[in-house]
Amino acid sequence: MESLLQYKSSIDDFLQTGIKTGEPDGLYEPMRYILGLGGKRLRPALTLMAAEALGGDVEDSMDAAVALELFHNFSLVHDDIMDNAPVRRGQVTVHEKWDLATGILSGDAMLILSYQLFEKYDAEKFKLLVALFSQTAREVCEGQQYDMEFELQDEVPISLYLTMIANKTAVLVGTAMKMGAILAGASPQVQDACYHYGLNLGIAFQLQDDYLDAFGDPKTFGKQVGGDIIANKKTYLYLKSLELSDQEQRTELQHWFSIKPGKPDPKVRAVKDIYLESGAADNIKKEIKNYTELAFEQLLSSGIKGDSLQSLRAVGEELMFRTV
Amino acid sequence: MESLLQYKSSIDDFLQTGIKTGEPDGLYEPMRYILGLGGKRLRPALTLMAAEALGGDVEDSMDAAVALELFHNFSLVHDDIMDNAPVRRGQVTVHEKWDLATGILSGDAMLILSYQLFEKYDAEKFKLLVALFSQTAREVCEGQQYDMEFELQDEVPISLYLTMIANKTAVLVGTAMKMGAILAGASPQVQDACYHYGLNLGIAFQLQDDYLDAFGDPKTFGKQVGGDIIANKKTYLYLKSLELSDQEQRTELQHWFSIKPGKPDPKVRAVKDIYLESGAADNIKKEIKNYTELAFEQLLSSGIKGDSLQSLRAVGEELMFRTV
Repeated sequence: MESLLQYKSSIDDFLQTGIKTGEPDGLYEPMRYILGLGGKRLRPALTLMAAEALGGDVEDSMDAAVALELFHNFSLVHDDIMDNAPVRRGQVTVHEKWDLATGILSGDAMLILSYQLFEKYDAEKFKLLVALFSQTAREVCEGQQYDMEFELQDEVPISLYLTMIANKTAVLVGTAMKMGAILAGASPQVQDACYHYGLNLGIAFQLQDDYLDAFGDPKTFGKQVGGDIIANKKTYLYLKSLELSDQEQRTELQHWFSIKPGKPDPKVRAVKDIYLESGAADNIKKEIKNYTELAFEQLLSSGIKGDSLQSLRAVGEELMFRTV
Repeated sequence: MESLLQYKSSIDDFLQTGIKTGEPDGLYEPMRYILGLGGKRLRPALTLMAAEALGGDVEDSMDAAVALELFHNFSLVHDDIMDNAPVRRGQVTVHEKWDLATGILSGDAMLILSYQLFEKYDAEKFKLLVALFSQTAREVCEGQQYDMEFELQDEVPISLYLTMIANKTAVLVGTAMKMGAILAGASPQVQDACYHYGLNLGIAFQLQDDYLDAFGDPKTFGKQVGGDIIANKKTYLYLKSLELSDQEQRTELQHWFSIKPGKPDPKVRAVKDIYLESGAADNIKKEIKNYTELAFEQLLSSGIKGDSLQSLRAVGEELMFRTV
């Protein structure tokens, strides 16, 4: 992610120095903690890249970009409580390090702070940015609710699963790019093209994440390969396998997803075999290709031309043609 | 509260029909539940009243007013989780009726929804309203954090206690009134006067609530008289008594606040005696008077005149010269 990662250090600097926290420390210290745990800062980088590609000013775009990173961290803190997760980025989660109340309240304050970052823009841009941000924030909450409900259901229609990942993650990719377009003063048509380009890339990216979690190269994949299978997580691969497989395979798959064996390797191997034999692995590769192509088609038909087009396109390629 | 309560039914109507919720139901049903539990709708009523008093349009002001009510309910849902409270307005709390995750997530969505309600105003007003709203929302979080920290401390300086109640409750009264002024298109000077009028009224009102909880008339006071004492809540009366009393009284008071007897009456009587004998009861009455007078002085020196002044003044009198 060369071109996206070039923004990381200036984003990190702004997170350290550009955000006005205050008293009491008990409210703001957990915020500094979660923001200090790192991360690739992909969402703000997408905003800065899109703004730059469309002739905007990177420095001027930083506040809006960082608002997305604050929002992302707010959702991590609250999601970790809801998922009862003890660890985030290799460190203990906020509600474990402090307590439940601290996790809820600093999360709330972080969400409000992200709104405040837009205040440096003039009223017209402010309204465009804040309305987009609120709409997306609502959709992320809706996605999280669907995600929690799906965990309690045996089977989830693929179409609803796609709605869920669109809401929970892809809308933020679309919004990051659209914000860049707004900040650059691009036309509403270009703004919308950026949104849909990002949205479809985001869906493709999330599906690819599902795929690599099972079939990625352990040498280069950042997380534990097979992690979703070990955790019995109902991903696209699992749901599609249930849909495509015969009764025997389906029963076997459901059995594997009802246990958590101490030695996970035989389970991971068996489940991956079902993903391959049922056709789910081929299907997800086709879907990743479809959403990626759709994204690029939307970009090409947007009217964006020349260097702007090349830069935006390069970012999509960076995101999608990774092997890690 | 005649003049404020006149707005209640139109606020209730708007809460029922004017808020665009959506899918999934699991996210929005808890919102409708908490909003349906009732309440006096004082905050939005203050916005509508101030807007009307300053020549604004009540119907046009409704969305911004209701944003404050949504925010208030968001904070109730999250506070109830943090305080582990099973009951709210005589009904079971959201996290008890559903679960922790639902309480957190519908609260989050309600906060975001309150921001969306400002979108009907033009960009200039939108920015003024949203910036004020964010600032206040931050302060309410800070106040809640102080409140939780104070519960773990034996003694809290009165000045910090006043900061806490200013942040946790009074800023919303100031903001409600200032929003009315913004909506009416009043000058920045009038907006600020309304804010400080509301802020000081809010502090006086909260102190009066502390006082009435101990010394109110059981026939007319809405809640259980002595409720704060029974719950060992560190109110202004408690903290001021510790500050003013001699060693013996102080030890007695701390003893009463370390136990929760099955029959509370002797405790309530003994603690009230200490509040009276230490001079804390007289002191709080003086402070209520001080903040109320300060509020009215600020209103009088604001340059607001005629009917507008009378209407705004009447509301302050309604709030403060109640016996319930």
